Amino acid sequence: MKVFVVGANGQVARHFADFVKNEDDIDEVAMIRNTDQKPFFDERGIESVHLDLVKDSIEDLAHAMKDSDAVLFSAGAGGSGDDQTVLIDLDGAIKAMTAAEQAGISRFVMVSTFRTGREEMSKENDLQIYTIAKNYADEWLKNRTNLDWTIVHPGILVNTDSTNQIKIGNDFEINEIPRQDVARVLIEVLKNENTIKKEFEVLAGEDSVEDALSKL
Amino acid sequence: MKVFVVGANGQVARHFADFVKNEDDIDEVAMIRNTDQKPFFDERGIESVHLDLVKDSIEDLAHAMKDSDAVLFSAGAGGSGDDQTVLIDLDGAIKAMTAAEQAGISRFVMVSTFRTGREEMSKENDLQIYTIAKNYADEWLKNRTNLDWTIVHPGILVNTDSTNQIKIGNDFEINEIPRQDVARVLIEVLKNENTIKKEFEVLAGEDSVEDALSKL
Repeated sequence: MKVFVVGANGQVARHFADFVKNEDDIDEVAMIRNTDQKPFFDERGIESVHLDLVKDSIEDLAHAMKDSDAVLFSAGAGGSGDDQTVLIDLDGAIKAMTAAEQAGISRFVMVSTFRTGREEMSKENDLQIYTIAKNYADEWLKNRTNLDWTIVHPGILVNTDSTNQIKIGNDFEINEIPRQDVARVLIEVLKNENTIKKEFEVLAGEDSVEDALSKL
Repeated sequence: MKVFVVGANGQVARHFADFVKNEDDIDEVAMIRNTDQKPFFDERGIESVHLDLVKDSIEDLAHAMKDSDAVLFSAGAGGSGDDQTVLIDLDGAIKAMTAAEQAGISRFVMVSTFRTGREEMSKENDLQIYTIAKNYADEWLKNRTNLDWTIVHPGILVNTDSTNQIKIGNDFEINEIPRQDVARVLIEVLKNENTIKKEFEVLAGEDSVEDALSKL
């Protein structure tokens, strides 16, 4: 399986690239915005394509995706402004979904935020605009596409090393999860068709990634 | 018919309130955010309700709408920041749609922007975030609700007096339209069921509002 990663240079996605190296059945195409991000992927034997999610067209994205079997959306504005949140987390995500459909790709894995939905969207906090953008992107994926989606809702991302001890489910109290473990989950999601049309939260827990996903 | 106006204190909606006075078959409930906006509606014999589209809940909105037969969405952040654009033009609009459905109201008239769609959303200009927000609100109305919608796409809004000379259609070159004439169009849209499930641009032209809409 060849997976096209949108936002390949993000922190979670870079861990994903590290794990991909050890996966015989998964190859990555890394979509990068800046050519100075290329050496990281070159060093890992990962193909990269130079595209801008905001400035490039859906047709350009679809063309770059054409030999891939799945899309992993791991891009995010990451606090660079509400305009960027709208352009990347909402519209960029929907552009990527449309491009995947144009390219004939059915599998689409979305890295979402921990909790979307009305209650969270109504909280007046620094994440409100981000939460709204992510919510409507997820809604679009579930209801306005024919993609075989999975939506992963990680907890608070931390840079501690992978423990490969997680839990997945819904309506958990928020807690931490190492970015490395989220990357492991994304690998397993791509390998497991039982994750299609499902969404779940991921937090540090007591099961291995493999075991946790097999319980879905 | 009683029409619940979200964003009743906006410039177009205030003209709408002036025209409503002369309509035997249309009553207005004006949703206002500040009580100092109340006298304008009191003077015109129009009922007002004090609610905040962003801070109040869908349940509160639905409760206020419960005796109305239609919702007119004419709210807008109006350049008060990208966060407000997301909160009002996107999420606020969708909250109003959901509230209308909860209140058992089927008719929903949306004042949109002149042009949405991919080409316009990709233009890097001052209106880009607004255009994206309006686009996804319109998309939600058309595809994620069971409402009897009409979407009105006015041209460049100007404060010159109504001429009652307009044109409606699609793919026009952008041009001006007096706010008063947009308000006239909204009145006629509410009176004409042939406008249900239609969207169209409104510009200054050569037909009376009544004639232009009868050609739909």
